[in-house]
Amino acid sequence: MNSQAELIAIVNQYIEKMQYNPQPEGLYAPIKYVLSLGGKRIRPVLMLMAYNLYKDDIQTIMPNAIALETYHNFTLLHDDLMDKADMRRGNPTVHKKWDENTAILSGDAMLIIAYQLFSENQKAGTNLIKAMQTFNEATLGVCDGQQYDVEFESRNDVKEEEYMEMIRLKTSLLLACALKIGAQLAGADEEDCNNLYLFGEKMGLAFQLQDDLLDVYGNPAVFGKKIGGDILCNKKTFMLINALNIATGEDKAQLESWIRKKEYNPQEKIQAVTTIYDKVGIKSICQQKIEEIFEQSLQYLGKVKVEESKKEGLKLFANNLLKRNK
Amino acid sequence: MNSQAELIAIVNQYIEKMQYNPQPEGLYAPIKYVLSLGGKRIRPVLMLMAYNLYKDDIQTIMPNAIALETYHNFTLLHDDLMDKADMRRGNPTVHKKWDENTAILSGDAMLIIAYQLFSENQKAGTNLIKAMQTFNEATLGVCDGQQYDVEFESRNDVKEEEYMEMIRLKTSLLLACALKIGAQLAGADEEDCNNLYLFGEKMGLAFQLQDDLLDVYGNPAVFGKKIGGDILCNKKTFMLINALNIATGEDKAQLESWIRKKEYNPQEKIQAVTTIYDKVGIKSICQQKIEEIFEQSLQYLGKVKVEESKKEGLKLFANNLLKRNK
Repeated sequence: MNSQAELIAIVNQYIEKMQYNPQPEGLYAPIKYVLSLGGKRIRPVLMLMAYNLYKDDIQTIMPNAIALETYHNFTLLHDDLMDKADMRRGNPTVHKKWDENTAILSGDAMLIIAYQLFSENQKAGTNLIKAMQTFNEATLGVCDGQQYDVEFESRNDVKEEEYMEMIRLKTSLLLACALKIGAQLAGADEEDCNNLYLFGEKMGLAFQLQDDLLDVYGNPAVFGKKIGGDILCNKKTFMLINALNIATGEDKAQLESWIRKKEYNPQEKIQAVTTIYDKVGIKSICQQKIEEIFEQSLQYLGKVKVEESKKEGLKLFANNLLKRNK
Repeated sequence: MNSQAELIAIVNQYIEKMQYNPQPEGLYAPIKYVLSLGGKRIRPVLMLMAYNLYKDDIQTIMPNAIALETYHNFTLLHDDLMDKADMRRGNPTVHKKWDENTAILSGDAMLIIAYQLFSENQKAGTNLIKAMQTFNEATLGVCDGQQYDVEFESRNDVKEEEYMEMIRLKTSLLLACALKIGAQLAGADEEDCNNLYLFGEKMGLAFQLQDDLLDVYGNPAVFGKKIGGDILCNKKTFMLINALNIATGEDKAQLESWIRKKEYNPQEKIQAVTTIYDKVGIKSICQQKIEEIFEQSLQYLGKVKVEESKKEGLKLFANNLLKRNK
């Protein structure tokens, strides 16, 4: 078994050595660029850790792990284009460094390369077909999630269940499928595969709620993004939806008025909305929800039929992911 | 064996009955729309015809045939977005009917659905793995071709070989792979698979050169597109590249001057360039090249080890594709 740090190093090494078609360079340079920007490599590492519960020869499934990371980075590339985001991981996004058409076409090629890596790994043997279905579930589900995310921007009646389903699709599914694919490729039985999937799904939900919480209450020095971004764009997060439900009288009117306002001082809006959040106690409600879902995730991991000692890596991973302050 | 008309009907029927996720509707409506706009269904029909050379149960590989058509329509969707084209097959393009972000995301989902259809067809049996590699070759190659096409727009030194390689990737490869996949899924031997691939590759090249020729010399009443589009955007076609090589003195100077001109009367430019084409005899040079490549394509079909009578459908298909006047 490998530690998380070892797996990250193995993933980064594999990505660094990857060979693309030498030509046309204009198509492949943006792909190499995006994949070189780093990141926590959460998805391939989860896949390798799940595989590691049953088998040691992780090199066998490296193409599948890298396929998932390539797919994830493709979604970032196209999402940044759709959001007109200028920066990603401290570097200019592809449509800024090159242009929009390059971002479209290199993104498409990246998605295809992800499928190529995944589907052509003959070492994976007969388990590949089942794993391929899980991969397909993830790739299409993330598109569903992105579509809901876009649609929610122009809606003011998004319900908590709808928000949770959106983040399940957009964020959790890929973690869930990473774990399930790792187990499937190792030949684990269906019960274990599903429990690992649910462990990842719940962990992903808790992770996203935590991310939303940090967007309001994080320490700007360590969070890495500007505080209050979700508040400024009226993102219908778990917190905003619940604050709107709980707040009454003047607080509710204030909150609704800030959502409607087209022109305002950004800092003033962030402060005003946060003050209402504080008054209705949204921070502890959100923390409680995170705790609850995180507990559920660990219960699913508990059901996986391998020695408890082997699960320590995944437990540590989940704890680091959730207890992080950046 | 089924006739071409029967196969088109079967393909259209299958597309019409296809079920997508019911939600989010905003993601799937553009996909249904694009696939409902018709077209000649060349790629799935070629795949089914190649399969038909060996086997009759075409229903077995319908998901693979539809995957190829879905992929092809995905490329049209994203290409139209990149080209800012307003119309496709007499209807508004997706980014016009919806918006640019919808075109990006629905296109991505379409590419994923193509892979889902292709990779999850368990009826295809063990031949699926080889066929999948051919599918990957096609999907990535088309991106390479599109990238070259974009790059050639801003270059004035494109050589004939480069142009031929670009249209091979952008147009021929998908026809070649359609035929090869059909044969692979039917369990044909490697020699037959490769000869069918080369038959398709050469047919595709001849088809694209014919399309370029019709863009200049076609009958506007039947061609379906406006005549002279390639001349107006200085597309480095086989014809323009050769005309620049052959023309001398005043003709060459004139041609180069029209390419450089930023402001002009479109009809005047089309007429002037066509006049130079006529003077250097580019029409017959192009026709001769088409004939030559078309002959090569039939030779490859001739080598395929099935009864000659079975090849009649493909011969007819190729003839119809090339002798068409629209």
